[in-house]
Amino acid sequence: MLKVTNLLETITSPADLRAYESNQLPQIAQELRSFILNSVSSTGGHLSSNLGTVELAIALHYVFDTPHDRMIWDVGHQSYAHKVLTGRREGMSTLRQYGGISGFPKRSESEYDAFGTAHSSTSISAALGMAVAAKTKNEKRSVVAIIGDGAMSAGMAFEAMNNAGVNKKVPLIVILNDNEMSISPAVGALNRYLVKLISGSMYAATKRGIDKVLSVAPPIREFAKRLEGHAKGMVGPATIFEEFGFDYYGPIDGHNLDVLIPTLENIKHLAQTEGPQFLHIITKKGKGYSRAEEDPILYHGPGKFDASIGIQAGKASKKTFTQVFGEWLCDMGVADERLIAITPAMREGSGLNEFEARFPDRYYDVGIAEQHAVTFAAGIACEGLKPVVAIYSTFLQRGYDQLIHDVTLQNLPIVFAIDRAGIVGADGATHAGAFDIAFLRCLPNLVLMTPSNEQECRAMLSTAFRYDGPAAVRYPRGSGVGTPLESSLDTLPIGKGRIVRAINNEAPPKKKIAFICFGPILYSALAVAEEINATVVDMRFVKPLDEELLLTIARSHDGLVLIEDSAIQGGAGSACLEVLSNKNIQIETLQLGLPDEYVEHGDVNLLLDHYGLSAQKIQQSVVSRFG
Amino acid sequence: MLKVTNLLETITSPADLRAYESNQLPQIAQELRSFILNSVSSTGGHLSSNLGTVELAIALHYVFDTPHDRMIWDVGHQSYAHKVLTGRREGMSTLRQYGGISGFPKRSESEYDAFGTAHSSTSISAALGMAVAAKTKNEKRSVVAIIGDGAMSAGMAFEAMNNAGVNKKVPLIVILNDNEMSISPAVGALNRYLVKLISGSMYAATKRGIDKVLSVAPPIREFAKRLEGHAKGMVGPATIFEEFGFDYYGPIDGHNLDVLIPTLENIKHLAQTEGPQFLHIITKKGKGYSRAEEDPILYHGPGKFDASIGIQAGKASKKTFTQVFGEWLCDMGVADERLIAITPAMREGSGLNEFEARFPDRYYDVGIAEQHAVTFAAGIACEGLKPVVAIYSTFLQRGYDQLIHDVTLQNLPIVFAIDRAGIVGADGATHAGAFDIAFLRCLPNLVLMTPSNEQECRAMLSTAFRYDGPAAVRYPRGSGVGTPLESSLDTLPIGKGRIVRAINNEAPPKKKIAFICFGPILYSALAVAEEINATVVDMRFVKPLDEELLLTIARSHDGLVLIEDSAIQGGAGSACLEVLSNKNIQIETLQLGLPDEYVEHGDVNLLLDHYGLSAQKIQQSVVSRFG
Repeated sequence: MLKVTNLLETITSPADLRAYESNQLPQIAQELRSFILNSVSSTGGHLSSNLGTVELAIALHYVFDTPHDRMIWDVGHQSYAHKVLTGRREGMSTLRQYGGISGFPKRSESEYDAFGTAHSSTSISAALGMAVAAKTKNEKRSVVAIIGDGAMSAGMAFEAMNNAGVNKKVPLIVILNDNEMSISPAVGALNRYLVKLISGSMYAATKRGIDKVLSVAPPIREFAKRLEGHAKGMVGPATIFEEFGFDYYGPIDGHNLDVLIPTLENIKHLAQTEGPQFLHIITKKGKGYSRAEEDPILYHGPGKFDASIGIQAGKASKKTFTQVFGEWLCDMGVADERLIAITPAMREGSGLNEFEARFPDRYYDVGIAEQHAVTFAAGIACEGLKPVVAIYSTFLQRGYDQLIHDVTLQNLPIVFAIDRAGIVGADGATHAGAFDIAFLRCLPNLVLMTPSNEQECRAMLSTAFRYDGPAAVRYPRGSGVGTPLESSLDTLPIGKGRIVRAINNEAPPKKKIAFICFGPILYSALAVAEEINATVVDMRFVKPLDEELLLTIARSHDGLVLIEDSAIQGGAGSACLEVLSNKNIQIETLQLGLPDEYVEHGDVNLLLDHYGLSAQKIQQSVVSRFG
Repeated sequence: MLKVTNLLETITSPADLRAYESNQLPQIAQELRSFILNSVSSTGGHLSSNLGTVELAIALHYVFDTPHDRMIWDVGHQSYAHKVLTGRREGMSTLRQYGGISGFPKRSESEYDAFGTAHSSTSISAALGMAVAAKTKNEKRSVVAIIGDGAMSAGMAFEAMNNAGVNKKVPLIVILNDNEMSISPAVGALNRYLVKLISGSMYAATKRGIDKVLSVAPPIREFAKRLEGHAKGMVGPATIFEEFGFDYYGPIDGHNLDVLIPTLENIKHLAQTEGPQFLHIITKKGKGYSRAEEDPILYHGPGKFDASIGIQAGKASKKTFTQVFGEWLCDMGVADERLIAITPAMREGSGLNEFEARFPDRYYDVGIAEQHAVTFAAGIACEGLKPVVAIYSTFLQRGYDQLIHDVTLQNLPIVFAIDRAGIVGADGATHAGAFDIAFLRCLPNLVLMTPSNEQECRAMLSTAFRYDGPAAVRYPRGSGVGTPLESSLDTLPIGKGRIVRAINNEAPPKKKIAFICFGPILYSALAVAEEINATVVDMRFVKPLDEELLLTIARSHDGLVLIEDSAIQGGAGSACLEVLSNKNIQIETLQLGLPDEYVEHGDVNLLLDHYGLSAQKIQQSVVSRFG
């Protein structure tokens, strides 16, 4: 077999992988790691996490009978090795591109993707459901959830663990992929506990585990002996995972196939007879690519780069809305020492690095814990401080009840800086902030703003901060038109829109059309308005809506185009329709926004065009409706 | 002092309570318990939980300097003793009535209600926020969260605990009020763990705690000695609460003021110097009223009853929608063995008792864990079984992201039986299902139904069950018009409404009006329609909306009344406006539903009238708009 120099090319399904001898797997791992590095550096995507799970993916597909056995990759941004091994090697060149393969597991993409993931901490719940179903249907099947230490800290994972252990006999396996870091550094007691486990002070638990494995697994003895060499001799307590009703094994080296494979084989058998099993493995993010090992955060989700020289400091391009927020936060932090910044594990993504460095005492990363983040902020607000919760649009879905029950009902002054609103591009449906306007604008007391550009975003954040109640500013991923930023922290009048362009009456159009705009889509509307000589209004506020302005425009025009970069169903345009209905005004209206379907992944401009929101498509729709 | 026979009457604030000697507190407790029993039996409300917290409320207000110190009652349905002691004794006769005091803590009601609660498991997050604020502002203040063992099992409480322990020096106290039962019996590993703690196998941890208290608290020595007498002698591990970074004390008897008060005094001091403290107390639901002690579930939230004879089996009144669901569930469970029923700790409230008794292997109470409940169902659905998730409208807010990310995005066939939709009455804003139509109808793939009566509800549940995708049926608390139920499990055509009443053209009205109805409000509309000779349409489906029917009606009428028992903002009426806009139809419309404010508590019919949804108010609005 030695003459085969590229084993990876021969593998088009896990069955091909299983045909190899186990001593050939390290070579496959090496090839797979190189492939991922080359592939991701040429397409962009998640890198550090995927370099860390190469051996695990190989071992799992080698030991388990996939797709009959179910494998659920929590979050899923570490599933590239799994994708390559399950027939998608060639597809990797289309990763995260429109029509190409998804950056996350996706049921519709492969029978090997047992459950779609992307938001954190869902895997144990889904796996428990599948394991319960297997038991109910009397089918012999293993269900494996692979979850990181960051994801493990979320309440949802706890809820699932709390339930799983009492279903003693379901064939559930939870693999804790402990790389001592989620996207942001892991925080909280659970993480500290894991460090304690790894440091060996709880070795006794490990040892008990190994003894149990040994009773059914002769091949693992060597491994056990080696581990025993490191024993601290101390009789420690049971791990909390055992308190949850799991058998616990580990921690073991997640890059050592000689250890991983026999351990998994044994745990696979134990799950069938003993019920839930918990394996704690240690891996290294960025493993095998030294630049990523040294700075796994920089290499967490890079764009394209040259792997031979690493990521280079980019040329200064336009500021992103995230950066605009990060700068505003520091400026307001200086101006008002009551400001407290809160992030649920998204320091980098939400642009909080500088704030953390400058104001560590007023910075709280609560971990992947959106429910807690929102109510923690509510508690702070009760005491007269001013919390700013930086959160992605789709992650706010996790704290929705808390936003209702703890924040808006009590009318507490909290700023929600909602990033990744609207289309997000490569991350696709799971991360597309399509619904926030619909689920937010129904809430009494909430002020909801949609900046059309960077300076307006800054002014809205100041407005939200100075408002004595809950206020949210939703802004998209990436950059806008590049308006220069003022240094002031001036506010805007609440609930007032502005006319950006009026119809030129020197050459009046056949029909007087006005664009009623929410968010950065304003600029596409403006381009069309220049062509067809229409009015353009920047509404600024979804709530409270500028009814006076809307009615004035409605009474002086023949048709309104209600346009936003979010779901039409229940969106900002519908808020306008409600006002028109309430004021008994009949006028032709055209709603443009995201349709009643989940947004695909791909280039943002391509997607905008696909959903009819490019300037060209907007013009077509307007002409088609209004002539 | 012995001649004072009614001490309770002298207490109008905690300061009055603190003026008594501690040896008088048992008498106050006795009076308070009697008062609560008499009060709740004459107004209705929560009973068992409030009888269980009499001593705790007394001890807390005796030891802590409220309202300067903050006290947060998790869920809050155990806060009546607290309300009585904080100046609301007389108000208790108006409990849960319109304009009267709330059944839950409410910031706007009293400065002693530090944080509004009602949904479970928010207290630790809010308390941590307040404790962090006290630290930040350099204010000496204790913050106490009182949380039950059921609430403790929710992921949100875990998230808060995970964060609290690493903020070592904040003055946070968590009191676990362990009564071995949430509303439904507690489930899961945490509960099993608590039982283990109580049984004494972890006594060492308790002992360590007591030693520490002793070092600052001479008066507690007697108690410590007594406890020591029960020692099992075994050196147990640290409790999981200590792993979370808390000092742990307990378990202690939560009805023994001689133990409670010195323990709280010591913990109060420790929290200031040592950071987060955790006290585990044991109480009995229904304490002191033998009928409630024997059946705490029956006495959990009774209506009015005669305390001297207890709750009597009621006369057979109309079936509630909850009962209609419970019967349907059993019938469908017989017809299709793939059916799996799931509840997040609401067996009684959701009507699952009979199903559990008859089909225990297909029944899952996952505890207070809405996030997990939804994704657990998703895992089951992936394997070809048919989960039915029974959940309250406002509790579904807790599983919103999971509904989006795990269920509707993957288009998985799951039935959501959404109880308590619309106005709920006495429970008020926190439990009023006002927003579900708005936050659900924006989700692609979801079918959303609003039954107008009991038989339609049954047929819709069957329809949802037979539909190969996610489907939700939302129905109100209480009973409807009392339509007889068919035994069949027949389905309805998806997305089709029905005309319930047509205009009588023998005496045509001046203006042809049609009521476009969603849910049981149909019958109020029908009453008005008879008066004014209007058309009435039962739309049945919010999604997919019967566009054809809506357009036919719009084209043949002069005005539409869009009516629902949920928020107007983004609601079902707005869905109709979107269709009319899309089809370019201009017609006068009037939206009726809940306004943009939080719903008060009180009698349902009174509230309907208040919000313009009684037949009389509907008629007024219609006449006022359409003449």
